[in-house]
Amino acid sequence: MDLLFKDITVIPMEGERVLRGACVGVDAGKICHVGGNDPKLSADRVIDGSDKLLLPGLYNCHTHTPMSLMRGYASDLKLQDWLFNYISPVEGRFAEGMAYTGALISVAEMLSNGVVSFSDMYFMLEGIAAAADEAGVKANLCNGMTAFSPEFDYFKDRSYMETAYILNNYHHRADGRIKADAGIHAEFTSFGRAWRQVVELAEEHGLIMHIHLSETLLEHENCKAKYGTTPAQTLNGYGVFDVRAIAAHCVWLEDSDIDIFREKSVTAVHNPVSNLKLSSGAAPIERLIKAGVNVALGTDGAASNNSLDPLADLKLASILQKCRAGDPTALPAYEALKLVTVNGAAAQGREKESGRIALGLDADLVMLDLHSPRQTAAIDPAASAVYSCTGRDVELTMCQGRILYEKGEYKTIDIEKAMFEAKRAVKKLGIL
Amino acid sequence: MDLLFKDITVIPMEGERVLRGACVGVDAGKICHVGGNDPKLSADRVIDGSDKLLLPGLYNCHTHTPMSLMRGYASDLKLQDWLFNYISPVEGRFAEGMAYTGALISVAEMLSNGVVSFSDMYFMLEGIAAAADEAGVKANLCNGMTAFSPEFDYFKDRSYMETAYILNNYHHRADGRIKADAGIHAEFTSFGRAWRQVVELAEEHGLIMHIHLSETLLEHENCKAKYGTTPAQTLNGYGVFDVRAIAAHCVWLEDSDIDIFREKSVTAVHNPVSNLKLSSGAAPIERLIKAGVNVALGTDGAASNNSLDPLADLKLASILQKCRAGDPTALPAYEALKLVTVNGAAAQGREKESGRIALGLDADLVMLDLHSPRQTAAIDPAASAVYSCTGRDVELTMCQGRILYEKGEYKTIDIEKAMFEAKRAVKKLGIL
Repeated sequence: MDLLFKDITVIPMEGERVLRGACVGVDAGKICHVGGNDPKLSADRVIDGSDKLLLPGLYNCHTHTPMSLMRGYASDLKLQDWLFNYISPVEGRFAEGMAYTGALISVAEMLSNGVVSFSDMYFMLEGIAAAADEAGVKANLCNGMTAFSPEFDYFKDRSYMETAYILNNYHHRADGRIKADAGIHAEFTSFGRAWRQVVELAEEHGLIMHIHLSETLLEHENCKAKYGTTPAQTLNGYGVFDVRAIAAHCVWLEDSDIDIFREKSVTAVHNPVSNLKLSSGAAPIERLIKAGVNVALGTDGAASNNSLDPLADLKLASILQKCRAGDPTALPAYEALKLVTVNGAAAQGREKESGRIALGLDADLVMLDLHSPRQTAAIDPAASAVYSCTGRDVELTMCQGRILYEKGEYKTIDIEKAMFEAKRAVKKLGIL
Repeated sequence: MDLLFKDITVIPMEGERVLRGACVGVDAGKICHVGGNDPKLSADRVIDGSDKLLLPGLYNCHTHTPMSLMRGYASDLKLQDWLFNYISPVEGRFAEGMAYTGALISVAEMLSNGVVSFSDMYFMLEGIAAAADEAGVKANLCNGMTAFSPEFDYFKDRSYMETAYILNNYHHRADGRIKADAGIHAEFTSFGRAWRQVVELAEEHGLIMHIHLSETLLEHENCKAKYGTTPAQTLNGYGVFDVRAIAAHCVWLEDSDIDIFREKSVTAVHNPVSNLKLSSGAAPIERLIKAGVNVALGTDGAASNNSLDPLADLKLASILQKCRAGDPTALPAYEALKLVTVNGAAAQGREKESGRIALGLDADLVMLDLHSPRQTAAIDPAASAVYSCTGRDVELTMCQGRILYEKGEYKTIDIEKAMFEAKRAVKKLGIL
């Protein structure tokens, strides 16, 4: 085999919760051994797993990668002011190549934080796809359709063209890394005819629908005033959830919305940092999980987070639910880990290939180093992963058996060049 | 001069918010230059400050350092169950030397996270003082008195003896690094007579009072049922706030409590991670600040956080207030930075020696490295520090002009030995 993690602590996210002193083998991009130590096992490279923790590679199910170019710009503003007076004008100045530049910086950050796959909603998908492809990571990419009139024709819009580009150039490739998602920006930024058109595209190609939903109370209440139904109910009425779907934010979901999510198997993607930072609220994640809804985690974009570190955000996700539920037993460490592993893979339709450490699956793995004063004696591996570790503790990130990041080194990205280009782009955008 | 930070971005926390391309000089433990570049400046060592950010060294104003030995133990439990059935029994098994071992690990973690001073409440203060002293960091140490009967005599108790030990052996030393605080564990764990005795000690020696206050609603309401007054009112009636005081948590403060804090100049120490994790609630920090109360930040102990990373927690402090206040402009980045710098120094009575980057003050400094994909172009230094940086980005921590941590290396701690001893202690405690 190509590589063997030896004598390592593993949280495989299926079967036993924790394997200690285990061996995990990787061959030809797949996991070829999970189990005890066996002297007969040999590999081209053996990694000593003492004081290391092996997890399935992490999923970041809602982000806007090119927004790393606006990280730290226009902080501490009200959402409408922030979006329309600061962010949108800068986005309007995005030049050819800038989406690639921003996406590459975000992908680098995510690799250093253990991410093997992300779901992105932005424009200039060609650039994002090129960055993800080059870096060796998995990605589900959509351009979230916005329609400013009821007569808007999706199939003549840039959002459709870009989606078609990903479909034609990446989606059906054998390695399956880069996929197109169908995208609707949000209920309040589009209309029924266009929703049906995006659903049509998703049905034709078996795509996953990606949408912002009930992020703010204002948006939620405005929808009820306009349609007499919640955003989830409204979109459901147009068949948006008849295809596999992921909905970002879900802060203001009502009980009937949660019923729709369960019945239609919609994934709720929780973005706790962004939701607090923009004072949108704290999503009812514990209730969603108890109702049987698949919940994944997103960092949102670097302009509203301002980091892309799922483990850091997972700690907040867990402790925020404890406070929201008035119950410190809510969303315990092991359950929380599902959000960034199995549930994330399911959100992206990758549940048969990834998200667990199991025989025959893609070798999408992250290895954490617990040999630091930050972890002391790492009494409980799941608690270490969720409450003490962040991306800082990531030693190695591997996607499909290929090491993309190890001990501070990027194997597929010229990081100095990427940072130089990012700085130049930010200057060109006139915000530095 | 001994050392010169050259061409560096500085947030001095007084005067101009940000200095760019500045020079900061250090000589004989003090800051001897703050200003523009001057070709005449020379030093034994010059640090190139390009892509670096210099801040006053960070203050962690509420922690329990030996509890790193219980990090990750007994997660996801209700507070009473956690404390009385898990934590207290283990604390009862603490053997000679274990407080030192746990404190040293915590101090190491804090140094790597840019902390130059901490306020600790625990027992076995001799060990904690030895660890802090050896590591070269500043610390205010107290043993929080608990009294299980109204007749309890503080001056015959271990909590007094340990405080006296710190007073006699460290408090008046010329370098002023290790100070004794007077400590009352909390209103609900003691009685009026003992409160007056601790106040007496504080008055005699000019000590700062350190107390847990209104952490949980239960504790707050029980006090009102017992005394007819809130914990702050009750303690105030016994003169507890007639001496300089810091109160940890303050989640359930009422308006009249906030009035007491302002009138008596009590510092509120916010512990956002611990408060969420134990589902205590979200403290009214924005209201306290607007009322003119000094607010500092604490990580609390590693058993209820489970990290000691003030910058990471500061991000949560800021975004939690934005959500609590329903206003994303609440606790903006620069205001947030005060909690871990100037306000922290004031909480410890060190405002004339530290907490700002100014001529003649102790060279207590932290330098962050912004040359990473996590910071892209670092558009706004305060936003970078609060929203993107964590301890991970700390390159150098200096206390009184002495470099204690640089680029992953501990200059005063044998980190491998410290981790080995910590692991052994955790095993002896029977929880690993």
